[in-house]
Formats: sequence, C-alpha cells, structure tokens
Amino acid sequence: MAKLYFYYASMNAGKSTVLLQSSFNYRERGMNTLLFTAALDDRAGVGSIASRIGLSAPARLFEPGLDLFAAIAAAHAGETVHCVLVDEAQFLTQAQVWQLARVADELRIPVLCYGLRTDFLGALFEGSSALLAIADVLSEMKAVCSCGAKATMNLRIDGQGRAVTSGQQTEIGGNDRYVALCRRHFTAALGGHYQP
Amino acid sequence: MAKLYFYYASMNAGKSTVLLQSSFNYRERGMNTLLFTAALDDRAGVGSIASRIGLSAPARLFEPGLDLFAAIAAAHAGETVHCVLVDEAQFLTQAQVWQLARVADELRIPVLCYGLRTDFLGALFEGSSALLAIADVLSEMKAVCSCGAKATMNLRIDGQGRAVTSGQQTEIGGNDRYVALCRRHFTAALGGHYQP
Amino acid sequence: MAKLYFYYASMNAGKSTVLLQSSFNYRERGMNTLLFTAALDDRAGVGSIASRIGLSAPARLFEPGLDLFAAIAAAHAGETVHCVLVDEAQFLTQAQVWQLARVADELRIPVLCYGLRTDFLGALFEGSSALLAIADVLSEMKAVCSCGAKATMNLRIDGQGRAVTSGQQTEIGGNDRYVALCRRHFTAALGGHYQP
Amino acid sequence: MAKLYFYYASMNAGKSTVLLQSSFNYRERGMNTLLFTAALDDRAGVGSIASRIGLSAPARLFEPGLDLFAAIAAAHAGETVHCVLVDEAQFLTQAQVWQLARVADELRIPVLCYGLRTDFLGALFEGSSALLAIADVLSEMKAVCSCGAKATMNLRIDGQGRAVTSGQQTEIGGNDRYVALCRRHFTAALGGHYQP
Repeated sequence: MAKLYFYYASMNAGKSTVLLQSSFNYRERGMNTLLFTAALDDRAGVGSIASRIGLSAPARLFEPGLDLFAAIAAAHAGETVHCVLVDEAQFLTQAQVWQLARVADELRIPVLCYGLRTDFLGALFEGSSALLAIADVLSEMKAVCSCGAKATMNLRIDGQGRAVTSGQQTEIGGNDRYVALCRRHFTAALGGHYQP
Repeated sequence: MAKLYFYYASMNAGKSTVLLQSSFNYRERGMNTLLFTAALDDRAGVGSIASRIGLSAPARLFEPGLDLFAAIAAAHAGETVHCVLVDEAQFLTQAQVWQLARVADELRIPVLCYGLRTDFLGALFEGSSALLAIADVLSEMKAVCSCGAKATMNLRIDGQGRAVTSGQQTEIGGNDRYVALCRRHFTAALGGHYQP
Repeated sequence: MAKLYFYYASMNAGKSTVLLQSSFNYRERGMNTLLFTAALDDRAGVGSIASRIGLSAPARLFEPGLDLFAAIAAAHAGETVHCVLVDEAQFLTQAQVWQLARVADELRIPVLCYGLRTDFLGALFEGSSALLAIADVLSEMKAVCSCGAKATMNLRIDGQGRAVTSGQQTEIGGNDRYVALCRRHFTAALGGHYQP
Repeated sequence: MAKLYFYYASMNAGKSTVLLQSSFNYRERGMNTLLFTAALDDRAGVGSIASRIGLSAPARLFEPGLDLFAAIAAAHAGETVHCVLVDEAQFLTQAQVWQLARVADELRIPVLCYGLRTDFLGALFEGSSALLAIADVLSEMKAVCSCGAKATMNLRIDGQGRAVTSGQQTEIGGNDRYVALCRRHFTAALGGHYQP
C-alpha cells in the first residue's frame, strides 16, 4: 500500500532540502522519482527545486489546471515511477490533492508532499487544507523561532520589518518577506489579536 | 510551555476512551482537569462524555457562542486547572480554537482536543480545520477498516447500509449511521469519485 | 504489509486501557484478536488484562519459554487472527520479539505491543530493548509528572515513599511502589546522579 | 524545557543532510550551534560532517572518554550555544548519553542526535540503546529498501555483495559495505534466521 504523505512546516524549515535528499535516496537505489513544484515559485528559475543550503534539481511545474493523476500515469507508463515528490504543496488545488491520493491508491506510488501549513494570517492554503484532510501521514518538520521555541507560524513583513496584516495570500517575492515565529510571537507581532 | 494538541481520528477509534483515561491520569496525580463536549452530541445525555467501551464522566457543554478562553480562565481563577480536554472538537468554531490556543499560550494550561478529521464527504469540519492549522501537535489515533488497513474516512450510510452522498455535514444520530473506512473503500463506496 | 508496533510509556500512562480499546475496535468490526500478558503480572488475576480505570478482558499468558510464533500460528490456523495485542511487553525475551516480527512479516498479522520503556534505574528491559531495536513503529504514550511535564521515567519507592536505588529489575508488587516522573525529577530523587 | 532528540534511521537515510540543514536553520536566525561527530568516522576527514549529497561542515570529534557535558558547558560559557547536534550518535557511550541529557535538563540547550538504530545483526549500539531508553523524542527518518518498503535494517556485505554474518560491530570502511533493507529482506539475506 503506497501512501500520501504531507510534510508540513513553516518557512525556512528545510523542506526542499529534505525533498531533494529523499529523491537522492531513491535514485541511489536505482529507483526513479518524479519531482514537481509550483509554477509560481520563481526562486530557482523555471522548472527546478532549490534549497537555501545550496542543493537543487530539475522539476516539473504544476499549475491549477494540470491533472496530476494523468500526468503521473503517463510518465509511469513510459518509465516506472517509484516515488513522486511535490514541493510548495500548499499551492495544490483540492482537486489535485485528490488526484495525488489516486496516484497512491491506484498506481501504488508513494507521494511525498512538502509545503507550508498556514499563510501570513494563520489561515490554511487550499493545498495544505486538502492534504491535512486526507493525507495518510501528517509529519511536521521543525523550524525554530528566534526565542528558541518551535516556529509554526509565518509572519509577513514589509521592507522596514513591520508586520503586514492584509494583502493577497500569495505574493511573489523572496523568503526575506517572511519570518517563521512561534504562535506567541506571531500573535504579538500582529498586535495581540489571536483571532484571524 | 503548554501546548494545544489535536488527536484526530475517524469514527470509532476510541477517542473518548483515551480522553477519559488522560483525565483519569491527571486526577490520579492530584491534578484538576476540565472536560468539554459539544452541546449537540447527545450520545451520553446532557453534560457527559461516554465511550462505547463503557466509560463516562461529566463534562461541560460548548456551543458556538461560548467564549472558551473566558470560561476556562474563570474556572482556573477559582481552582487551578492543570489540563483542559475537549471531545467532539470538530464542532468547535474557528474562534474557539484560537481561544484554546490562548489558554495554552497565556494561561499555560495544556489543551487536549479529540475529534474527527473529516465529514462524510471527506471535507474538514470548522473545528478540525482550525486545529489542523494551528495546533502545536497533530497526533493520529488509528482505526481499522474492514479490510485491515487504517481507516481514515467516515462513510455515512442510510438505514439499508447504502452510502449517503448528500445532506447536512452534521446529522444528529447514532454512530450506526457511520462506518470508518480506508480511503480506497470510502471512494469505492461513493461510486469511485475521488473528488468531493 | 503488517507491522510490529511498540507503544511505550512510563507507569500509569493508560497502556492497558488503550490496548483493550484497540481490541474492542477490531472485535466491533467482526475481526478476531488475540491478547497476551506476562505471566508474572498478577494485577488482574491469572489470565486477564485489567486497567486502573476499570476495564478488563481475558488474555493468554506468556512466559520466557513460550514460542509466540508457534502459539499464534496455531491459533490463526484454527480461527483467523486479525490482530495480536501484547501487554507488559517489556517482559518479552529478545527471542519472543523476533518471533512477533515473524508474525507480522510471515503471517501478515499486525502486532501491537504495549510496555514500559525503562526500569526503576533508567535501564531498558529485555523486551523493550528488542522492541526499540526492531519494531516498525515506535509510538509514545504520554504520562504526566507531578510538575506537569511529560513523565518518562519510573521511580521505585519504598513503604515510606523514599526512592529505591538498588534491587531486582522486576519486583512483584502493586503500582503503588512506582511513581512516574520527568527525567529531571527522577534524577533529583535518585540523589542527582544522572549516570545509572 | 529543552529536549534530547534521537533521530534514528538505517544507513543512507540522509541523517547528516538533515543535521546540517538544522544547524543551518539555527545559524540563519543568528543562533549558535555546536556540532559533534564520532572520532572513528573518517568519511569526511578529521573534524567534519559530510553528507553523500554534497554538504559538509566542521565538527568537533567525540571519543569514548570525552565528558560531553563538561565540553559543552565550557563552550556555552564562552559563547551561548543554542543547539547541540551530534552525528553518528550510535557511537556515544551510555555515560555520554546521560551527559547530553544533563545538557538538555540543566543547561537548557536542545540536543539533536542522529544515528543508526541497529548494527549489521539487528542489535543495538551502546549509543542508540541509551538514546532509545531516555531521549525525550524518538523520531524515525525513513529510508527505502529496494522493494519499496521502509528500510529499517542494515546488512553488511563483503566485496562480492554477500551477506556478512559475523565480525566486529563497527568496522572502519565506507558506506558501500552496507545496504539498508526492510526486515523481511534483511532476514532473507541472513539465511532466514530471525533470531540474532
């Protein structure tokens, strides 16, 4: 039985590094992996996954309209796929998450999704919401707040380092616009309002 | 640092039993616990948590309008509360989940929430959605499908045992209207449609 | 693929309750379970598993010489066994743990073992040592220290409540001879010596 | 409350990569980390941790006689240490593991240990045994067997790729002398003998 995994974390926990290492592990054993990342993530140039620590690998891009089950099934028909790895999984649509569940259940290929849990206001993304609902395994990757506690929230800051409290859920830009914080410091930075 | 826990599971995994055992463990050590359950859950009569295996204990009821932070802070001011335990946590509102986060962060009382992850169509409840977003610890309680695999989904059935595919998210009624299934059998029972 | 699970905890975490609930869940689905407990545990009378909260069920007894693979295979040949549950698993021999691994790998029956991690001096038992080495899943059940922290250690006390620092690893007697503590309070109770 | 973590895995799961990423995360936040690896591990040259994927960082060496509590306390007195990371943790002595527990409990510095669970015969190392006994958190890092199942065991092979069934627990040499397997394939490779 293959499983659908969701490795969730805040910003800068090292998600891409762990994804690339997992793919490396499969390939080292002579197995074939398929990598995807969101089309809107431009950190690494078109069509690649890169980590802050200096690793990178080519990846297919997914956009909201892409049928991931069909795409993976087609690739699998050409060359056996042993593992699918998806970065920036918070940007998957709900339909795509169910397509990835079919990849696990029908094609029997394990699917490892890496992504953010919540946005800059503590709300779920569409992809993280669907993965938290139906993934077989939820596994947290730990990041650290400046106070030493576990960072679970993502604060958006402006050019002067001030907390941003409104705006689009997704804003194209570098990691320097976000800072990972524990819930207490996140709430304090938002002016003490817990309710989003 | 006190934490907000979400112990999630499908139907009939034994959530209430584990909640009652955890409360028992605290009380055995001379510590004080506060139990809550949803006002709409009528399994155990008004104001109690009962498990299928035969355990029960009195509990306060929560309704959507209740300010859980205020209620717990008031109780804590009277007699120190060492642990808060919430059953049927899928029925919490988003606001109440943030109130429970404040209980952990400001009152420094651990909060243990037990509840369903998804409804009879595989969609999140308001309470489970908010807990999956901001709880400090997500911990799965395992239930078993009739095929032996892990049951993660909840099928709603009618009086003839047929799958129900439409209706209200919450329907007052016994556990016999639901059956916990693995995702493959859940999907098959819904006619093979993966997309909710 | 069936798995060998080790649910480890300190004293009084509710291990037996969770074991009995898990067996109940299987039987409620019409599946058959096989329960074992250590022959030297006399808490519940010969041949049963009982929890402090008031639940109990009949169980087979295991002694060091029993071949658990042979015993379970024989039972399985008579009536299909869907799950094996073992209480007081710290008292298994290393050979018996490998026999249970065979039950999972060859008979394809999941095996759920519940037991203590360490003894009154912080050392492993033979059974917990072997399970921590080769179980497919290690899962902690949380108990609480009187300070509110997680209790991971088991202090042995005498009739006057004083810490006991020497003696047999296993001493027949009630739970009242032990108190579950966090590592800091355990160490302090043993006179500040961390090294066992 | 700082914790003692044990991230355990079989060979080639990517332990060193995750260790280096965790250290990177701390340093990126302006925090100070202290890295240790076993003196006998010569993969990366004296005094460094290197991963197969191409990352590396300088590290202090630990030998059986080193008092890790004293060494870390001295470093911490000079410059605040926010996290201690230990690679090849299976080679720690039992005394050193208790010293690391003191670092967490008394110095309040989190300690992250990465290491093998078992040797080429399925037996614990001294360091992994002590960590499995008293670490606050046990967390598995997944590796993959050539069959696609989770690899939890480490087979030692000779120059011709044949299973080695006797010898020293630790043998200086490259990773190419070991292959990570699931328990079923490990047992088959050892001639079907489950009992070590």
